[in-house]
Amino acid sequence: KRLRDYGIKIGVLKTGQNNAITDVAGVKVGHTTVVKGDNIRTGVTAIIPHEGNIYQMKAPAAMYIGNGFGKLAGYSQVEELGNIETPIILTNTLSVPAAAEGLITYTLNQPGNEEVRSVNAIVGETNDSWLNDIRGRHITQEHILEAIKSAKSGKVTEGNIGAGTGTICFGYKGGIGTSSRVVPKAKGGYTVGVLVQTNFGGVLEINGVPIGQELNNYPFMEELLNEADGSCMIVVMTDAPLSSRNLKRLAKRAMLGLAKTGGIASNGSGDYVIAVSTAKDNFVPNSEESMFYKSEVLSNEAMSPLFLATIEATEEAILNSLFAAETTEGRDSHTIKALPVGQVVDIMKRYNKVK
Amino acid sequence: KRLRDYGIKIGVLKTGQNNAITDVAGVKVGHTTVVKGDNIRTGVTAIIPHEGNIYQMKAPAAMYIGNGFGKLAGYSQVEELGNIETPIILTNTLSVPAAAEGLITYTLNQPGNEEVRSVNAIVGETNDSWLNDIRGRHITQEHILEAIKSAKSGKVTEGNIGAGTGTICFGYKGGIGTSSRVVPKAKGGYTVGVLVQTNFGGVLEINGVPIGQELNNYPFMEELLNEADGSCMIVVMTDAPLSSRNLKRLAKRAMLGLAKTGGIASNGSGDYVIAVSTAKDNFVPNSEESMFYKSEVLSNEAMSPLFLATIEATEEAILNSLFAAETTEGRDSHTIKALPVGQVVDIMKRYNKVK
Amino acid sequence: KRLRDYGIKIGVLKTGQNNAITDVAGVKVGHTTVVKGDNIRTGVTAIIPHEGNIYQMKAPAAMYIGNGFGKLAGYSQVEELGNIETPIILTNTLSVPAAAEGLITYTLNQPGNEEVRSVNAIVGETNDSWLNDIRGRHITQEHILEAIKSAKSGKVTEGNIGAGTGTICFGYKGGIGTSSRVVPKAKGGYTVGVLVQTNFGGVLEINGVPIGQELNNYPFMEELLNEADGSCMIVVMTDAPLSSRNLKRLAKRAMLGLAKTGGIASNGSGDYVIAVSTAKDNFVPNSEESMFYKSEVLSNEAMSPLFLATIEATEEAILNSLFAAETTEGRDSHTIKALPVGQVVDIMKRYNKVK
Amino acid sequence: KRLRDYGIKIGVLKTGQNNAITDVAGVKVGHTTVVKGDNIRTGVTAIIPHEGNIYQMKAPAAMYIGNGFGKLAGYSQVEELGNIETPIILTNTLSVPAAAEGLITYTLNQPGNEEVRSVNAIVGETNDSWLNDIRGRHITQEHILEAIKSAKSGKVTEGNIGAGTGTICFGYKGGIGTSSRVVPKAKGGYTVGVLVQTNFGGVLEINGVPIGQELNNYPFMEELLNEADGSCMIVVMTDAPLSSRNLKRLAKRAMLGLAKTGGIASNGSGDYVIAVSTAKDNFVPNSEESMFYKSEVLSNEAMSPLFLATIEATEEAILNSLFAAETTEGRDSHTIKALPVGQVVDIMKRYNKVK
Repeated sequence: KRLRDYGIKIGVLKTGQNNAITDVAGVKVGHTTVVKGDNIRTGVTAIIPHEGNIYQMKAPAAMYIGNGFGKLAGYSQVEELGNIETPIILTNTLSVPAAAEGLITYTLNQPGNEEVRSVNAIVGETNDSWLNDIRGRHITQEHILEAIKSAKSGKVTEGNIGAGTGTICFGYKGGIGTSSRVVPKAKGGYTVGVLVQTNFGGVLEINGVPIGQELNNYPFMEELLNEADGSCMIVVMTDAPLSSRNLKRLAKRAMLGLAKTGGIASNGSGDYVIAVSTAKDNFVPNSEESMFYKSEVLSNEAMSPLFLATIEATEEAILNSLFAAETTEGRDSHTIKALPVGQVVDIMKRYNKVK
Repeated sequence: KRLRDYGIKIGVLKTGQNNAITDVAGVKVGHTTVVKGDNIRTGVTAIIPHEGNIYQMKAPAAMYIGNGFGKLAGYSQVEELGNIETPIILTNTLSVPAAAEGLITYTLNQPGNEEVRSVNAIVGETNDSWLNDIRGRHITQEHILEAIKSAKSGKVTEGNIGAGTGTICFGYKGGIGTSSRVVPKAKGGYTVGVLVQTNFGGVLEINGVPIGQELNNYPFMEELLNEADGSCMIVVMTDAPLSSRNLKRLAKRAMLGLAKTGGIASNGSGDYVIAVSTAKDNFVPNSEESMFYKSEVLSNEAMSPLFLATIEATEEAILNSLFAAETTEGRDSHTIKALPVGQVVDIMKRYNKVK
Repeated sequence: KRLRDYGIKIGVLKTGQNNAITDVAGVKVGHTTVVKGDNIRTGVTAIIPHEGNIYQMKAPAAMYIGNGFGKLAGYSQVEELGNIETPIILTNTLSVPAAAEGLITYTLNQPGNEEVRSVNAIVGETNDSWLNDIRGRHITQEHILEAIKSAKSGKVTEGNIGAGTGTICFGYKGGIGTSSRVVPKAKGGYTVGVLVQTNFGGVLEINGVPIGQELNNYPFMEELLNEADGSCMIVVMTDAPLSSRNLKRLAKRAMLGLAKTGGIASNGSGDYVIAVSTAKDNFVPNSEESMFYKSEVLSNEAMSPLFLATIEATEEAILNSLFAAETTEGRDSHTIKALPVGQVVDIMKRYNKVK
Repeated sequence: KRLRDYGIKIGVLKTGQNNAITDVAGVKVGHTTVVKGDNIRTGVTAIIPHEGNIYQMKAPAAMYIGNGFGKLAGYSQVEELGNIETPIILTNTLSVPAAAEGLITYTLNQPGNEEVRSVNAIVGETNDSWLNDIRGRHITQEHILEAIKSAKSGKVTEGNIGAGTGTICFGYKGGIGTSSRVVPKAKGGYTVGVLVQTNFGGVLEINGVPIGQELNNYPFMEELLNEADGSCMIVVMTDAPLSSRNLKRLAKRAMLGLAKTGGIASNGSGDYVIAVSTAKDNFVPNSEESMFYKSEVLSNEAMSPLFLATIEATEEAILNSLFAAETTEGRDSHTIKALPVGQVVDIMKRYNKVK
């Protein structure tokens, strides 16, 4: 059951059909989960912005670095050119090279890409080394290709899956989460979808209720309890036609959603947001026959509703990852418990936050 | 009465003695309030980082731009050199030049500055034009000098005062607010103080309670109700010895505190954070007799508790501004009501958030 | 006589008709020169991007900070929104507030701006305090209004005029300089115009000839000779239809032109580039009736010729400022000599650089 | 023979002993050249900042992105934390993942790193696909380990070696180049060393002489001749004790040196600068026993001579790469000629630039 199934509602905007990043038309998500023996708890999640050849039809995009203690691949070209040319892969910290290798293989092998000799692979990561034998580097490029191949639209499995297999969030088992929002018709009726890989800390709040305090589980509690470190990867997709400049602004707002869960972007976190517009008419062809690029995008003044949508969907996606994730035993018998959802819902009731 | 006086407590860390930016030793705040006739509702707030000659003993500093739709003066030199050399002035949008003029006059006239021929004035602003005849530009450099001269340590008056005289926040009267946090001794025992000039919108939440929704007062409510635009200036002071790089990271976290009040950093907002370290041993002398700069600063790993402190103090400072501000009639008989505190506290009780 | 009149040719691209920033259609330049008594040697230069109401029809723009030890006004809003809404004013360091005041007055008073309550004034500066009594702040907002009013198209006076009245460059009298380039028709045939206010140092080279060394006049020469400090303001205008993202890239290239004159962007320099596209169809209306912004801009792939044009025009504009400037006596009988043009041309001949 | 062996002298500062990046004490360089059959012309160059365990004793560092059309790995963590924790690897565009994999392997296997579970690999690249079968991805992590192992101090081989095996510069064969400068004793006597991987275009100038024009070989010459695209990786090492903030400023100056060779940072270029300080006392220990970080660094005011040193060494390193590189036939019988050095020197004489 997801957060909303318990009667807990985040924000004021409506969700899309599946309350998932895939509510943005054309977006697909695929997972490869790699669980082997006692020590391997990791995986790969692929997010595909559109169904065509992404290299040949690049999608306007931007990234925002909430806190840069991470190994994300692909930043500078997106910043310079304003678009992405591969699917987005999430995985563990030490498997970024394997993932980039997989994206290059995928791109070189796409029909129509026979002359491609440069690929800007987009790979995000968080560090799952508490539960996973990360030093073993158990992700191969085949896992990447499999995640891309298996990507589909519709509902998205959350929690201990794909890149979320071994992650930890607010001291509980984290993972993959997703959510979406639709802005009012008078504001364009656009959909914003968010998918997160949660592996960070802070003082957990759920819809404004101080769960971290109620469960007596938060950093700096008695001077130096548990650490708040870790990371959050946030992928934002929207069908709104946006320039890369306004996508960067949108990406920046995702961190405001993270803040509302109690995240603090601690020193050791690698918090990155990748925002992509899937509006087809603004795709950037690889071989430009013309010197010109025509576009129709939202004006600056029309951005605020999309900012709100991004904030709400990010907050809910993070919470969904916590509600879906399950207790996991991994490397060296380390065990991370699932969020005690029953107890949490009871607390939420005391705070009048369950409808 | 301030937020805490109603039994509402933000976060997990303790406040400083006055729960104010002035809890950071040496920091002083001064206000000039300019209210004249029916149409003039504006003013100036000065924040002084230390009691010495600031130009001669510059303080390590950094700025973070949450959303850059604003006219803040002084950004690039702080980014390049990592310090400030004047007090910080907050005022209205069209009075930034008058404020900069005042800071230059102040600096040129300080004893010991007879040979100074370059001054990087730090001026933040928000737009108070709904209540104030901003086009009249009623702030003069004398108002700036007066605010600096009147600056004092100890308690800080909040609400409709100084640069907060004519501002609006979440549809209610905003203004000046302040708060502070002390990190645990094992984490260094440092104080972080925040002062805000609140003039922004969003969907108001108070300590996680959906006040905006409960009061039926938020943007995009019925497709296009009131606008969320506006700005927030945030000044962060700390006695922790921090490099300008880590001050920038600290500044970035203030926006996470803003997020928790329901702010969305809307398109039209100029959200800026200025963070300053008042640790004396790291001050940067203007006339360097040596080629070298010695410093002892906190390591990256020691930053997270200060991040949390900044987030909590920013959230509470914003809420304090709302609790202190009073209903104001201004330009062209525009009236902005104070937050209905009694009603709010009742709602907070229903959500079990009043101790 | 200008550089080219001596048979010295910079680069491979052709100049526009007047080899001036005004070769970009619609661009106008105006100067106010303020020379009084023995100690006042300063002024104002205004660059107007188009003839309409700039606030109502904003021009796509970007800024690049080569070195941020300066007081430029207007940076963050241009960075956030991608356009400018006022003329560009250049003046001395301590007169930035007066200039911003003047731009606000100008904007508020334009017909059609009666409801304007926010103005992002764009003001650049360099420090002319060696020759000018800068502490006296002799620039008033009337000087700004006069410079704007007197702005005209066609030839631009260079050297000791306007904002260049009291500046120093490579140890010689600097000032205002300008130049332009036209890219080949097959590349679009666009014009790039540059205007500079030169007040910086380094090891002077003219078209690759080591003039600084030949004249025995450069910093660090005998371990610690003269200082290289100072600043350069660079304004780039083009009729090429460019997005703000690509304007930022264009702005960045201007610093490469400065490099070719021997500039080193020393610690104390405030080197800023403001790039503006005057392509009318892409102007951004202040009151957007539509939620959408349509544009047709050059693709990334079409940028390189414009990069080269910017580099060449910047290099030549700087050199033109040196060739035009005249020996000046100013504050406290400080005298700065003009570049010894005759001697320079003789040296250039020895290096086979005079055609 | 190198540039100086022909009597051509760049700039005003003295070189270090070997006029190489290895003049900075402790810095080592290693190459793996991969030439196989007709189509494989690529390789790896490793630059080691110091002889210890780099992960355990991180070196203060910064990066500057001249133009971001590239795939450099490691940017955001260096930007956030201000240091590097691995050697720097240069290779071809599609081998960045292999290189990162190699650096991770190297780091995990270093004695003392048994508990390391996060590695920020620093990998730069340029695209050698005209001469090399880049799609075949012929670099393996063994090549990386070999380059690191073979790294040594002293003279550095230039031209067609390591990561420079298949690169092209100004239409001629490019490659690896290096140079160094020593600032005067009164300015600290520090050494700045630069190593470049040259693969970019523009209008070639050698010490101010228009070689590109004289040889009739430059872009846009007859409207659309050859393209200027390509990239330049620039590594700057210095024994000067610098903060990461001032290292970023230093990195920025390297682009000014590139400008003086006629480079234009074209649209398609990935121009990145990595600057590292090898001053031992400021190394950042991985396991901080103390909350504090003490440092003694150069003050802002002491930076300018180092800026000049960086500019000069970068210019000369690029030219050295051209003088050392040899005519190469590679993929699909593509041939790139070496710079015709004899002819070039003759031209230089005509311009009085050969002593």
